[in-house]
Amino acid sequence: MEDPSLDAVSTPGRVAAADEGIGQDELALAARNHGLPLEALRYDVTPPGLHYVLVHYDIPATDAQRWRLSVKGQVRTPLELGMDELRALEPVTRRVTMECAGNGRAQLSPRPVSQPWLVEAVGTADWTGVRLQAVLDRAGVRADAVEAVFTGADHGIERGIEQDYQRSLPLPVAEDVLLAYEMNGRPLPPQHGHPLRLVVPGWYGMAHVKWLHDITLTDTPFTGFQQAVAYRYRQTPDDPGEPVTRIAPRALLIPPGFPDFMSRVRVVNPGPLPLEGRAWSGHGPITRVEISADDGHTWADAEVTPRPPHSTAWQAWHTTWTATPGRHTLAVRATDADGHAQPLDPPWNRGGFANNAVQRVALVCRSATAS
Amino acid sequence: MEDPSLDAVSTPGRVAAADEGIGQDELALAARNHGLPLEALRYDVTPPGLHYVLVHYDIPATDAQRWRLSVKGQVRTPLELGMDELRALEPVTRRVTMECAGNGRAQLSPRPVSQPWLVEAVGTADWTGVRLQAVLDRAGVRADAVEAVFTGADHGIERGIEQDYQRSLPLPVAEDVLLAYEMNGRPLPPQHGHPLRLVVPGWYGMAHVKWLHDITLTDTPFTGFQQAVAYRYRQTPDDPGEPVTRIAPRALLIPPGFPDFMSRVRVVNPGPLPLEGRAWSGHGPITRVEISADDGHTWADAEVTPRPPHSTAWQAWHTTWTATPGRHTLAVRATDADGHAQPLDPPWNRGGFANNAVQRVALVCRSATAS
Repeated sequence: MEDPSLDAVSTPGRVAAADEGIGQDELALAARNHGLPLEALRYDVTPPGLHYVLVHYDIPATDAQRWRLSVKGQVRTPLELGMDELRALEPVTRRVTMECAGNGRAQLSPRPVSQPWLVEAVGTADWTGVRLQAVLDRAGVRADAVEAVFTGADHGIERGIEQDYQRSLPLPVAEDVLLAYEMNGRPLPPQHGHPLRLVVPGWYGMAHVKWLHDITLTDTPFTGFQQAVAYRYRQTPDDPGEPVTRIAPRALLIPPGFPDFMSRVRVVNPGPLPLEGRAWSGHGPITRVEISADDGHTWADAEVTPRPPHSTAWQAWHTTWTATPGRHTLAVRATDADGHAQPLDPPWNRGGFANNAVQRVALVCRSATAS
Repeated sequence: MEDPSLDAVSTPGRVAAADEGIGQDELALAARNHGLPLEALRYDVTPPGLHYVLVHYDIPATDAQRWRLSVKGQVRTPLELGMDELRALEPVTRRVTMECAGNGRAQLSPRPVSQPWLVEAVGTADWTGVRLQAVLDRAGVRADAVEAVFTGADHGIERGIEQDYQRSLPLPVAEDVLLAYEMNGRPLPPQHGHPLRLVVPGWYGMAHVKWLHDITLTDTPFTGFQQAVAYRYRQTPDDPGEPVTRIAPRALLIPPGFPDFMSRVRVVNPGPLPLEGRAWSGHGPITRVEISADDGHTWADAEVTPRPPHSTAWQAWHTTWTATPGRHTLAVRATDADGHAQPLDPPWNRGGFANNAVQRVALVCRSATAS
């Protein structure tokens, strides 16, 4: 029998036709990966099981007792560290808002075919672990090292290339990176990288390598699939593109009132309506959140809780809007300290990355007598 | 301004056209509700955050300190119980496999438009709480009581009907029911009904009312929306239908080998391939699990772990299949002690309930030299 071509099951990236509904392949990803139900934005720290989850291949079966992290390449002393050895180093806890680079993809037109997120691929957790720098200091970084390549235990095939999930970071970025073994004070759950993962505050999720078992320092930039092929902003298939790195600013509103089951349209009563939500950016604190009820013609400022120094967690915001009977669409826009503001129209690229167009929430306000 | 009709945002149930892809409304449900990634079938008890979640409306904000369960209607002594009072009663822990009644819906043709599950709406947990019977004994059941109506705190509109989520059980069924306040030894997480939910072993998920705050005994059968309109097996819109109750048998295979990211097709190597998974039924223990690699023409028995007495949790099964180079589709079929076996073709109804057609897993086996 002829060797079946893996090309037949692992096809190139593609963009959906203009009128093409979500396919069974996209649905299978949506069913196994998890979004944050937007009402869960109410929690400062996302409760277990509500944080977004994106797994490229399968969640691997792991054993913390036998786990080894190897540190090798351009180091003076290669290391093999068990979890006990990592836990013996000084622990650090960081509250970090994490977002999938593909968040917003399914709202693009035409739609890049991949995990079809709307706006819910986000979550905030307290991550505890050791500073990557502490481990690198023990290994001794050679002068010619330029990047650290991180390898996870999840194995699969993607666009024809069989791989363990791998990503790199330039060494200067690695200074602010955590090797995390706890999430919200408990050992990592399987889907969040048990027993060890990378946490890269301010960067999209693809950088936070889960089920981490190898760190290799290299003297040339890494050109693996997830670095050089996937996770780049491209307009065409042959565009080399720019790498996806830090999180673009976004504000999300907790949808007010109550929903219809199927349409998720919200129902509210007339009068003053408290609105609240979260906002974040990987480029710095959020300095402004605005609300519009007229499709972006006019905006009103919300109150934004300042971000503590060194935090990379989302910030709470709130305001009041006066509902009048009829149908409305609320839009929310965040601006960060770097001056980046969310666009009204989705920024498009072939991977469907970083679509941070303003969130729009449809609602119907009943007349006073109807309530 | 005219009062906007809620009918415009809350439309009747419908069935998709033959060539209609998954819509944005179905996708929004898939993104906020959570399936079990099938590799997580490896765990006897589903780890936190991997158990399926289906929320009809919003996860309500709840406060365990101030939570009150009222017990009223056809009882001699109406009760108002706080969580401390419930925890003071004798605790019981049950391991229960729970499945959404809509599991399998998105594989139907034509497809009922609702939460578009493929096969992953399942999970197993250890639920701790008090027996409903212990609470009813304290209240004293009147002779004319026939049903218990359970009300949750989630509020929404569905097919034009504004409601708190409500379901009833005939009193004889209530004997085996738990008022659960812990999941896997920890307080219920928000999405699983914090601080109190019903657990009805063997029944589909719609019976396990979450965020439970009221139990009312009635002397007539309950005719609320979730009982008399939704969750019925209907062939046509005006068919009164039969109620959805106990879980139909199902076996699931942990997809072997490793996946392609987008197609989720599995890649395996030639030779003996261990296969394993879980099987369950709400009608009794699973007595047989079979595997077919030729579209159901021939079947081979797998080994099934017996179910302990009184358990309603899934059972592990395993077998070995010899992979040969080429493309294959594996099918898995469970039979329960009542003699119910999974059908090869999906049983269709307008709600898309209890589609327990055999699971099919597509894989490609490489030639030996390719590995």
